[in-house]
Amino acid sequence: MTDPRTPLASLSDDELAGFLAEQQEAYAALRARGLKLDLTRGKPAPAQLDLSNDLLHLPSTATDRDGVDVRNYGGLEGLAQLREIFAELLWTSPDQVICGGNSSLTMMYSTIVDFLLFGGVDSPRPWSQEEKVRFICPVPGYDRHFSMLASFGIEMVTVDMHQDGPDMPAVEALVKDDPSIKGIWIVPTYANPSGAVVSQEVAARLAAMPTAAPDFTIFWDNAYAFHHLTEVEAKSADILTLAAASGHPNRPIMFASTSKITFAGAGVAVLAASKPVIAWYLKHLSMGSIGPDKVNHLRHVEFFGDAEGVRAHMRKHREIIAPKFAAVDEALTSGLAGLGVAEWTRPTGGYFVNLDVLDGTASRVVALAKEAGIALTPAGSSFPLGHDPRDRNIRLAPTFPVLDEVRTAMAGVATCVALAAAEKITADRSGPTEDDATGVQQTEGVAR
Amino acid sequence: MTDPRTPLASLSDDELAGFLAEQQEAYAALRARGLKLDLTRGKPAPAQLDLSNDLLHLPSTATDRDGVDVRNYGGLEGLAQLREIFAELLWTSPDQVICGGNSSLTMMYSTIVDFLLFGGVDSPRPWSQEEKVRFICPVPGYDRHFSMLASFGIEMVTVDMHQDGPDMPAVEALVKDDPSIKGIWIVPTYANPSGAVVSQEVAARLAAMPTAAPDFTIFWDNAYAFHHLTEVEAKSADILTLAAASGHPNRPIMFASTSKITFAGAGVAVLAASKPVIAWYLKHLSMGSIGPDKVNHLRHVEFFGDAEGVRAHMRKHREIIAPKFAAVDEALTSGLAGLGVAEWTRPTGGYFVNLDVLDGTASRVVALAKEAGIALTPAGSSFPLGHDPRDRNIRLAPTFPVLDEVRTAMAGVATCVALAAAEKITADRSGPTEDDATGVQQTEGVAR
Repeated sequence: MTDPRTPLASLSDDELAGFLAEQQEAYAALRARGLKLDLTRGKPAPAQLDLSNDLLHLPSTATDRDGVDVRNYGGLEGLAQLREIFAELLWTSPDQVICGGNSSLTMMYSTIVDFLLFGGVDSPRPWSQEEKVRFICPVPGYDRHFSMLASFGIEMVTVDMHQDGPDMPAVEALVKDDPSIKGIWIVPTYANPSGAVVSQEVAARLAAMPTAAPDFTIFWDNAYAFHHLTEVEAKSADILTLAAASGHPNRPIMFASTSKITFAGAGVAVLAASKPVIAWYLKHLSMGSIGPDKVNHLRHVEFFGDAEGVRAHMRKHREIIAPKFAAVDEALTSGLAGLGVAEWTRPTGGYFVNLDVLDGTASRVVALAKEAGIALTPAGSSFPLGHDPRDRNIRLAPTFPVLDEVRTAMAGVATCVALAAAEKITADRSGPTEDDATGVQQTEGVAR
Repeated sequence: MTDPRTPLASLSDDELAGFLAEQQEAYAALRARGLKLDLTRGKPAPAQLDLSNDLLHLPSTATDRDGVDVRNYGGLEGLAQLREIFAELLWTSPDQVICGGNSSLTMMYSTIVDFLLFGGVDSPRPWSQEEKVRFICPVPGYDRHFSMLASFGIEMVTVDMHQDGPDMPAVEALVKDDPSIKGIWIVPTYANPSGAVVSQEVAARLAAMPTAAPDFTIFWDNAYAFHHLTEVEAKSADILTLAAASGHPNRPIMFASTSKITFAGAGVAVLAASKPVIAWYLKHLSMGSIGPDKVNHLRHVEFFGDAEGVRAHMRKHREIIAPKFAAVDEALTSGLAGLGVAEWTRPTGGYFVNLDVLDGTASRVVALAKEAGIALTPAGSSFPLGHDPRDRNIRLAPTFPVLDEVRTAMAGVATCVALAAAEKITADRSGPTEDDATGVQQTEGVAR
């Protein structure tokens, strides 16, 4: 048997052929199992949702602490008590917090709509009147950030996402002289999909850097701010304070939600920013809103009690999902360690594992997995327009399936990764004229 | 004592002076009562909200009829069962219905945003790329429709709202040759504020009329579709079918909500349209939504049961608010009938009474009422940009206060209307050089 600890690239042709045959056999066995597993999206598992089932019969009253009838119209900025809880969690003051509906994505979308149609607090004109609007997109990143920008016709410029945040020299060079660079997406805590945490230093540079656009905006999507997987809880940088201290108080707009805290589809979303930005957002919001669902706000206030209630609740999530992340690592280590064909993250929080496979094989891995009944996020989805220039990045989302399924699925994924890598290396050795696009078919021919 | 049945304009100068003095005395007594009453907005009363308090501890399960876990992400178009209920109520099919968040205003807003940024199904280009976009606004109408358009820089062209709908010859003339006329607001059932119900004939003309703009859109805001005040229940015209039959299937977009059925701030909103329009709306919605709050959808499904459940529920509302509308009519009749200074509606549904006072006195009436502790919607608010050219229109919203308060407030309003009218007629008689803007002060001088 081929030693799994020998890098595939170092194997002799015969050894490689043997390894390939083994993987083909393993893959055939995998397919024969007729699995039907899904690792595509960062969805909470039913067991996680169950943690919040008390919400189904709350609130216990129709009137909040301040005497507000939460059933009626009004209160555009959200229920005061809920804003207080999030202000504490996000280290800001309640008057810098708006609580909205069930989706922070919606708040991000409407923020960009406001920039496009009306311009922001520091905008010389609405973005729709600019010749070109471009955003910096650290990659790998969140696919829905990118598809949103694409839908608006906003151009995306990629920079690398490192373990402490985006490649700052690249970011600083882009924003310095080009006024068409209007924004950057940042998932500061346990980033989607890399798990990176933006360091204090990187955050300070983002807050302070000179930008050609006066209305350059950091879309600080703190979706996983409280979503720790270990007892060492990462603390995201306090971007609002940093930006204010650097003389750019209106630069960051922070987003968060309870979608991965309570109910994914029935939580509450939060926006936090400087007071002028809050006033700007509310002004436009007032034209198309009768106020948020304050009953759901009160429901959450009663459920959590206070900020510590949120933190305690998150520890229950950790108990459910941390073993799933461990299972991913175990399966990948068992199947792939030492082969030199894959690297993956061991995130300390968030919802994803970032798997980088052999260059040029990610699409093949996803296709193989699909044929074996294991649904993965499409290859390239963590890049703007779905284009991963190295075709190596795969986002794994292990939270939704039960633990046993995660184990089964990830063992299968490891087989697919090893098979695709062996195919690729074999094809590469068969000649430099090989066309990568058809290489898989021909590789199978070689191996037969 | 002056005979209250004699039109004020027919009184002799002495009689008029006597009437004015009486009204001033009555007004002084009114002010002395130190009232604090609010008839500004069409808000359900707490007793109405109480009708839906079972929602506070629903749903009883986290899974719907079809096995959907309503707590998790997804289901952009809304829960199937809720769409079925609204499809029946609005005479369409579930695949032409989207159930959204807590506000139909938000769905209207996002529809216009989509037209502006992307263009509609039949648009040659996004509206933001048009030199000019104009909407027809039947007046009096809903202030928030108008403020929304103003915020987008969309010009408003008014036509008269009659008891069977908008002035159709005026509408047809406007849309026929002018491609900048892109839309019209229609509140078809128990219109805000006139209570008018758009007739079958008017609806058919709206559906069939030739329009220069290929993407001319009827924003059919059926906010009061089921909000009857009598046993004779008005049936709004089936605009979707009429438009499809006329070859303009994409012309109408219907909006409705349960804001005045269950909880004003925590209900569910509905959009209904042709299938291409539904697909278009969902496509853009998908970029900024993780799906609606399906827990709230299921909550409403369990609460209503079916479409008949909605209708039965509305009869309970009627029992609470019909007496308030009767009280408005009684107070206005008692205080103003025969004076020839006011006309008002006796709506058979909806949330408002439309009060037309003597030309040029509406602002004065609202100011007098305010000083007496009775808050009314600002004069002119039912007209674009708040400008009522005749300064005569006042929208009364009697649902929120309890019955006794409605009686008290409306008796006070009647006093204010009579006083302002007497002031105005007195001022007019005092000479044609009188400046209306300062007339009130001088009138008081005359009367002293």
